[in-house]
Amino acid sequence: MSLAPSPGDTALDDGGAFRSLHDELRIFFDSRPHADLAPELVDELARLVLAGGKRVRPTFAWWGWRAAGGDADGPLARTTVRALVALELLQGCALVHDDVMDRSPTRRGGPAAHVVFATRHHRNRWAGNGRLYGDSAAILVGDLALAWADDALVTAGLDSTALARAWVPWQAMRTEMMAGQHLDLLAGARREESLEQTLRVAHFKTAAYTTERPLHLGAALAGAPADLVDVLREYGRDIGVAFQLRDDLLGVFGDTSVTGKPVGDDLREGKRTPLMAIAIGLARAAGRGDAARQLRSCLDGHRTADHVLAEVQRLLHDLGAVYAVEEKIDALISSALSVLDRAPMADAAKTTLRRLAILVTARRH
Amino acid sequence: MSLAPSPGDTALDDGGAFRSLHDELRIFFDSRPHADLAPELVDELARLVLAGGKRVRPTFAWWGWRAAGGDADGPLARTTVRALVALELLQGCALVHDDVMDRSPTRRGGPAAHVVFATRHHRNRWAGNGRLYGDSAAILVGDLALAWADDALVTAGLDSTALARAWVPWQAMRTEMMAGQHLDLLAGARREESLEQTLRVAHFKTAAYTTERPLHLGAALAGAPADLVDVLREYGRDIGVAFQLRDDLLGVFGDTSVTGKPVGDDLREGKRTPLMAIAIGLARAAGRGDAARQLRSCLDGHRTADHVLAEVQRLLHDLGAVYAVEEKIDALISSALSVLDRAPMADAAKTTLRRLAILVTARRH
Repeated sequence: MSLAPSPGDTALDDGGAFRSLHDELRIFFDSRPHADLAPELVDELARLVLAGGKRVRPTFAWWGWRAAGGDADGPLARTTVRALVALELLQGCALVHDDVMDRSPTRRGGPAAHVVFATRHHRNRWAGNGRLYGDSAAILVGDLALAWADDALVTAGLDSTALARAWVPWQAMRTEMMAGQHLDLLAGARREESLEQTLRVAHFKTAAYTTERPLHLGAALAGAPADLVDVLREYGRDIGVAFQLRDDLLGVFGDTSVTGKPVGDDLREGKRTPLMAIAIGLARAAGRGDAARQLRSCLDGHRTADHVLAEVQRLLHDLGAVYAVEEKIDALISSALSVLDRAPMADAAKTTLRRLAILVTARRH
Repeated sequence: MSLAPSPGDTALDDGGAFRSLHDELRIFFDSRPHADLAPELVDELARLVLAGGKRVRPTFAWWGWRAAGGDADGPLARTTVRALVALELLQGCALVHDDVMDRSPTRRGGPAAHVVFATRHHRNRWAGNGRLYGDSAAILVGDLALAWADDALVTAGLDSTALARAWVPWQAMRTEMMAGQHLDLLAGARREESLEQTLRVAHFKTAAYTTERPLHLGAALAGAPADLVDVLREYGRDIGVAFQLRDDLLGVFGDTSVTGKPVGDDLREGKRTPLMAIAIGLARAAGRGDAARQLRSCLDGHRTADHVLAEVQRLLHDLGAVYAVEEKIDALISSALSVLDRAPMADAAKTTLRRLAILVTARRH
């Protein structure tokens, strides 16, 4: 799946209007004051942000804006796209800091930022601890991305009332994202097995930050009334949780060559996903203590070999956990689509939001 | 030294007007939306930010604002103090992330954030690696502080032109701070011995972020003309570098019970300070290769025992490096004061800025 606007997809890129996101990202990097003071940090951030990614967040924000009456051919379209640059920078922060926290060696098919810096340290035979230098430089890249995200929004050229409106979802989103990350860490540390808690993590770590608040941000930029914001957020919450459930499945069953991330990483990192919570619950309900133990042992990081991964994959199918998660995804999509049906918005936005709901939840990477 | 306004110091707290900073910080924390999602992160940030600290940055910003004609008894005083909350939050980010990067166990006399979280992990016998959890949670605390710093500035209630003016130094300061941090890391990795390069780090890592840009920020909030901004920045640059040179001396010779940081940490961490660059330069110029080797070996972390520290302290005196740094501090203060003398500003501001120049560069902690 690529949500990134391309000349071949006139629906998603809104007949061309949204295609300029990449140009605006490049302009932002090219015109950043004081960037020359930290070329290493900036280059690494640019490598990550300009290289691509699915542009999920700005896409949802754009369609939130369109749903609230934003005019793709009007004078505010370009300012809006420029403001949405902030979402890709925020995502840059999340990815770089995530990879440090998860000790992930790769990102988007290349080395993670902390690995790039650690490798440079080793290659130059620099003084001190290379891993610590790598982690530290990556922390700074993420900090820069976070500060620049706010700079992008504040300096996009919005009028002051639009900026004030946008800041409500923007500040909520950033706090929720960090809170969600910490809930995720806590779930792992506490060996969380409750479906409710793992879904809560999925909501704050992913849904709020990936779909719900971007839609809210776009709608707020367009000055949407509260009831439309509510509808968009409800749709976004469902789609966002479904997006995360799909991600969890891909983390265990996905094709590395397509996802760009090693399969099984979630298991190796002991991520407490709804998928695993459901599987352990089903194992217990079926009186299969051996299966529950095997799943827990895998998450506890005692066994991470390929044959263990294959066994866990088989178990997840046998226990019906994969089926249950697919059912949950379907239910969330249905709920999201029925919310859309009764929403007061232009047809073009409704059609695309329907399509996006399927795209981000049925994807293979 | 405490720059924090206190009832006993009517000059620094401007007859009471600036005393409300602490109240505004508390109000900010008490009214943060979504803070309940991440109580652990918020509590740790509040512990650090509300516990105290010298409030150096808001103090300089306040006096930058006063120097540019801000009225301490006028209707904008409270909004200005509220905006300066952002500086303490930004400093919260810098401290927490710094301590992760430097592996510092303590901060302001208590445990550093990453240690607090790692200890909690051990105590609860949680799953996974306690150090990694501690570092990860601390990264998130810093991220939250950085995002909230921007929230504090944007939602302070400034009118839109004041916010736009303030954003110029604000975005410069954040980028310079992160760039300065990375220059510092690079100087350590590359075993930097050039005085010029170590002074460059002191400029961006400390002066820009501690004095120069806070003064600029305050002046911008008040709508200062460019020539006054230039003067304040020049003064701030000198004072800020002198502040860092004092810090470097305290890092080697300070009293732990007063500074709250273990003496010798800078040496143990291999920090490439102007003090060490000067000492190594003087050793070379005096043909004392043994002394230069000893200093380098200390920085390379091969020897960190107390008797080594005592030896290095003696060497820094014998070589004349301490004297040279004190001279440099004096020269910077003189330069700053003479810049002030010819500056067009109200007497109250000029008097306090003169006093601040001495306070922050002659301090014992």
